Amino acid sequence: MAFAIDARVANSRLDRCREIMARRGVDVLLLSVGHDLPYLVGYHAMPLERLTMLVVPRDADPVLVIPRLEAPRVHELPGVFSLHAWGETEDPVGAVASLVRDANVAAVGDQMWSRFLVELINHSPHLRYTRANDIVGELRMRKDATEIAALTAAGQAIDRVARQLHSGEIPLIGRTEAAVSADMSARIIAEGHDKVNFAIVAAGENAASPHHHPGSRVIREGEIVLCDFGGTMNGYCSDTTRCVFTGTPSQEVAEAYAVLKAAEAAGVQAGVIGRSCESVDQAARSIIEAAGFGEYFVHRTGHGIGMEEHEDPYMVAGNALPIEAGFAFSVEPGIYVPGKWGMRLEDIVVATNDGPVSMNNESHDLVTVVA
Amino acid sequence: MAFAIDARVANSRLDRCREIMARRGVDVLLLSVGHDLPYLVGYHAMPLERLTMLVVPRDADPVLVIPRLEAPRVHELPGVFSLHAWGETEDPVGAVASLVRDANVAAVGDQMWSRFLVELINHSPHLRYTRANDIVGELRMRKDATEIAALTAAGQAIDRVARQLHSGEIPLIGRTEAAVSADMSARIIAEGHDKVNFAIVAAGENAASPHHHPGSRVIREGEIVLCDFGGTMNGYCSDTTRCVFTGTPSQEVAEAYAVLKAAEAAGVQAGVIGRSCESVDQAARSIIEAAGFGEYFVHRTGHGIGMEEHEDPYMVAGNALPIEAGFAFSVEPGIYVPGKWGMRLEDIVVATNDGPVSMNNESHDLVTVVA
Repeated sequence: MAFAIDARVANSRLDRCREIMARRGVDVLLLSVGHDLPYLVGYHAMPLERLTMLVVPRDADPVLVIPRLEAPRVHELPGVFSLHAWGETEDPVGAVASLVRDANVAAVGDQMWSRFLVELINHSPHLRYTRANDIVGELRMRKDATEIAALTAAGQAIDRVARQLHSGEIPLIGRTEAAVSADMSARIIAEGHDKVNFAIVAAGENAASPHHHPGSRVIREGEIVLCDFGGTMNGYCSDTTRCVFTGTPSQEVAEAYAVLKAAEAAGVQAGVIGRSCESVDQAARSIIEAAGFGEYFVHRTGHGIGMEEHEDPYMVAGNALPIEAGFAFSVEPGIYVPGKWGMRLEDIVVATNDGPVSMNNESHDLVTVVA
Repeated sequence: MAFAIDARVANSRLDRCREIMARRGVDVLLLSVGHDLPYLVGYHAMPLERLTMLVVPRDADPVLVIPRLEAPRVHELPGVFSLHAWGETEDPVGAVASLVRDANVAAVGDQMWSRFLVELINHSPHLRYTRANDIVGELRMRKDATEIAALTAAGQAIDRVARQLHSGEIPLIGRTEAAVSADMSARIIAEGHDKVNFAIVAAGENAASPHHHPGSRVIREGEIVLCDFGGTMNGYCSDTTRCVFTGTPSQEVAEAYAVLKAAEAAGVQAGVIGRSCESVDQAARSIIEAAGFGEYFVHRTGHGIGMEEHEDPYMVAGNALPIEAGFAFSVEPGIYVPGKWGMRLEDIVVATNDGPVSMNNESHDLVTVVA
């Protein structure tokens, strides 16, 4: 994981968390599996039954509760947190409970395993629980210059894979979706990512399932192939969707795609500081609805992105949050006709003082690929 | 995911869950991300912010609460559960809360994201929470014949990779740990796994960190290389550890390894029906302690394995649970001398009426590899 946080950045982020904790009446943050922990101190908890947890009291120094056998993996940050290593026959939740015994309100990380929360409820029945995302998410939503640089580099890397798809360098016809997915995964790594997060390949009628799992379906001539793929590079995520057609699309498909392309462009252009998140959804959706495809656009227009593939803010009806500089999010409208075909087009956008900037700049056309 | 459960198996497992729920006074099971859900009904929840949850009341039919855009992925099992698909602007936790409004005690899956439990606590403050693992884990611990066959096949596949390591087919000297890890990962897939779970490669002093993350350290001549690797094949996990030496080991290392090998064999032989889980730990540990290395064996001897890499039962001091037929678990003692070297040896063992059967049968020696 080529991803480092120095003590200065860690302490600045922790200080800002404490300000929000004070405002929201939260006494302690409890962070385990998930991305709040690495965002604050550069360390990823292993997703295992052995508990790793950073305890951040509002008025005391943070303590990283960690299995003794993981302790050698920690890159310590002097002056940021101390370690509490627990042995194989000790009770780590009991250790956390004694660290939070004076707290009334604890904010827990979104992806922390529920088993630890259930155990903590039993240890500390007096505590009230809220989501740490209400605090750390406030920071994570507003990307700084270093984070935008990482998103830009990841976007350029994933665009190189999209270009290989468009150029016909990735064979499609006669291969299974699963084989093409594996091929794209290898290219995601070869282009510089540390990790593949997903490589959805959905052919023909399978493209009508937005989160299709690539399988043994063989790609044929004369059909749409939807590819939604991304990875993590230096701690930050890429995510893009392009569709290609193995032949010449029918008029029905070509016309629907023209609508989709216009909708996606409108969504990107709506990513303006001060406008609401839901207005991005509305900008894309209104074009699809006006063309009569509204019932086939079955999901929100986008999600925030950063260290995590999906994070705040969400571009969805009901989210009135105003866009700020440094918000990074996907714009990915789709049209899905069950049993027939589906299509989606996706870019990652960063809101800046100069307007929305797209991290993905490979062609937005429905390219014909006969490889 | 080549992994299927038919309606008969699903209903039999659900019926046995309900018996345990009745015995333990649990009114409803809430299963999301994790392996209880696929164990019961063959479906994996996506680890995303959109909630998927199987609600299993003790006295009513199960309901799978699922994002509408995931619904096309579900392979429905008629007569097992019904679907409650929720749209992008609905509140899925509210839907779950109304399904559990008559319950007093809910058992939640271990790996369910805490954000959903926090939200459910706010929706349903009257509910008491326990761990679903106390119920579904009772079943999952006792592998049936189909599951043992899957563990056997996965063990044979991972043994083929171990053999490639021993034969020198996997080059080591002059490569980074990370490069060897990537090479082994590709071989894990090539030998039939659907997914790589880990491929720890730790050279020399790095082997003293039991969960070392393979990095840019170049493997040299004359040092130990610890490889701990496994994947998932047809829904069940493999997991094995072998160490090789890039040259002739020093007397110190050779003697320590002889102790480790004897300890591991003793742990495997202790996997006898009716003996306690902690007696497996004790069998391996006592040999390492008697040789004066006790302080360097810093972790438990083993963990259960099945659909999950680590699951009940744990082979650790304090676990008096008697071993039963069908228990499957690792035996993996280690000796770790900080700053110098580390070594671990690991097999998966299934307890049977004919005694312990090892899923891993590649040589247990410290093989010299000069590739």
